Amino acid sequence: MDAIVIRRGETAPEIVGKPRPDPGPGEALVRTLRVGVDGTDYEVIRGSHGGYPAGEDHLVLGHEAVGVVAELPADAETDLEVGDVVVPTVRRPPAAGANGYFERGEADMAPPERTVERGIDGAHGFMAEYFTSPVEYLVSIPDDLAEWGFLVEPISISGKAIEHAAASRSAFEWTPESALVLGNGCLGLLTLAMLGRRGYDRTYCLGRRDRPDPTIDVIEHLGATYVDSRATPVDEIPEVYESVDFIYEATGYARHPFEAVEALAPNGVAALLGLPDSWAFEVDGGRLHEELVMHNKALVGSVNSNRRHFAAAVETLADLPSWLREDLVTGVYGREDYRRAFPDTFDGDERTIKTAVEFSTI
Amino acid sequence: MDAIVIRRGETAPEIVGKPRPDPGPGEALVRTLRVGVDGTDYEVIRGSHGGYPAGEDHLVLGHEAVGVVAELPADAETDLEVGDVVVPTVRRPPAAGANGYFERGEADMAPPERTVERGIDGAHGFMAEYFTSPVEYLVSIPDDLAEWGFLVEPISISGKAIEHAAASRSAFEWTPESALVLGNGCLGLLTLAMLGRRGYDRTYCLGRRDRPDPTIDVIEHLGATYVDSRATPVDEIPEVYESVDFIYEATGYARHPFEAVEALAPNGVAALLGLPDSWAFEVDGGRLHEELVMHNKALVGSVNSNRRHFAAAVETLADLPSWLREDLVTGVYGREDYRRAFPDTFDGDERTIKTAVEFSTI
Repeated sequence: MDAIVIRRGETAPEIVGKPRPDPGPGEALVRTLRVGVDGTDYEVIRGSHGGYPAGEDHLVLGHEAVGVVAELPADAETDLEVGDVVVPTVRRPPAAGANGYFERGEADMAPPERTVERGIDGAHGFMAEYFTSPVEYLVSIPDDLAEWGFLVEPISISGKAIEHAAASRSAFEWTPESALVLGNGCLGLLTLAMLGRRGYDRTYCLGRRDRPDPTIDVIEHLGATYVDSRATPVDEIPEVYESVDFIYEATGYARHPFEAVEALAPNGVAALLGLPDSWAFEVDGGRLHEELVMHNKALVGSVNSNRRHFAAAVETLADLPSWLREDLVTGVYGREDYRRAFPDTFDGDERTIKTAVEFSTI
Repeated sequence: MDAIVIRRGETAPEIVGKPRPDPGPGEALVRTLRVGVDGTDYEVIRGSHGGYPAGEDHLVLGHEAVGVVAELPADAETDLEVGDVVVPTVRRPPAAGANGYFERGEADMAPPERTVERGIDGAHGFMAEYFTSPVEYLVSIPDDLAEWGFLVEPISISGKAIEHAAASRSAFEWTPESALVLGNGCLGLLTLAMLGRRGYDRTYCLGRRDRPDPTIDVIEHLGATYVDSRATPVDEIPEVYESVDFIYEATGYARHPFEAVEALAPNGVAALLGLPDSWAFEVDGGRLHEELVMHNKALVGSVNSNRRHFAAAVETLADLPSWLREDLVTGVYGREDYRRAFPDTFDGDERTIKTAVEFSTI
């Protein structure tokens, strides 16, 4: 079967032939429909994040998948049936076996050494005609969402981050009205839409693009305000717009958490999701520390998401307006055409927001 | 009546005569028993925090008080009776009147401009023979705790911070085992005891004192490990001891929140309570940002506490071992002797942990 991989030492994905995988005990065989591409894939391709499976010279890419159950284990304890459309979660137990995080369904809380991540770190991903997975890591989605199912994983990532940030504000009555999303990629725009539907009155999205631009169109179609970071850095947002109750950081720009402390309203929280490289710079640490205390502010880091977040993300996906997913997904390409799904590697297109590789159709 | 005040332009407290206050509508008159002294009082005395009541040339000091109800308003809706021992909360509505924070009992979440703080910022404190307070800001405590009642306020401050930090971990199963308290003053030591009683297996307390020292004795009596910050800075604690699930910052040292990110175990949280001055320094912001994300860590600022935290603190005070409060309170001085209660201003004594001024006895 065909698979899209990154080989050790290479800097661009390629398509290779691999044997179709045999499901192990408790595993389903899944025929892949589509697999999305995101910023983490580029970090993996560049080698700045993640790693290869032990003893392998390549990694099958892809962690945002949707597929159809092709085979189920004979004695599986599952409600799944052959033909069901499913989305796989990303984390799996490491070689040492399952641990408490997996046993209680909270793989997203495992530290990196207690987990592998399919398509990212230590385990092959889903960019192949077929993949296998223990049935407990497959979440079903309605057939009519199958073509958009690769958006479930990114939505689940935001769902978890929003949940953890809100939990940090649960010891008092928190009625947030304004939210700022840092980053106008697909994840940022999905989150902007999710926040709008959660009752935020005023939403803002930070980017660094000139008009006309399709992401700015999406931002404004969602009723949000576009903030150009070249004109208004994050710590000047209170002066130009307003202090905001919630900030969602999805760019990985290292200064953002520090600037966010200044941009938050009293009792606000910033959820951090980006993964910057090491970078030393000066901050007014005394002021940031005092600001966090005097205004009861919080910073909450969040990585990955668990099965519960995936299930919630299926509901969210169904609830998002159809124009949004159509505007966000700017290209779905057959596997022979996979290079077009990696525009940052092969051929930049300013108008790209979200791409996916299609392996088969429902 | 006698009151202990700081005058504008002065750098040491003094005792002055003031008229006994007349209770306004809905206010009780309270005969003061004892008022504790803490680090915030020294910040107020130095002028680095807080401020004077509008139009006044002095501020009555003291925010950690216990007293006896001397008069109640005729038509008060309260369970209090004359003779009850009470502890006053600290925050009061500003001149503009009550706002939503006060109306829903969450004055602790009000930003500074929506509140005044008795004895700290914009309102006279409790270091006087009598004070008045709306009855809703008085929390009763059992008679047999009266002599220690000035510890209720600091315990409530820690209770709120621990509550907010734990809330930030409530979206997953968090079973913390290890805790580190930064600061071996009275607040740090009380918190260390509170954490031990909340089931933390291993507790650490950071200070910068040589043995023999009474705070190190308290730390070890509590079964905790003393960490000398001169030998082991916070970010080296994982190497020398272990990464910790919970950190409580009570020193106001500006670098601590940044070092805490490194010292936390995966999924850990640091509660911040100190109030440093502005201080710019270099941090590896990229690494801190990534560390917060990859390990689901959080920083939660916390200031003040509300009536609910005071009520819980009364229970906590009753539950703490009697040796602890006796070891912590190193001096209670009559009001004529008030200088001895401010050793950092008048005459340092290395063995001082906690002092209070006594105005009357039960």
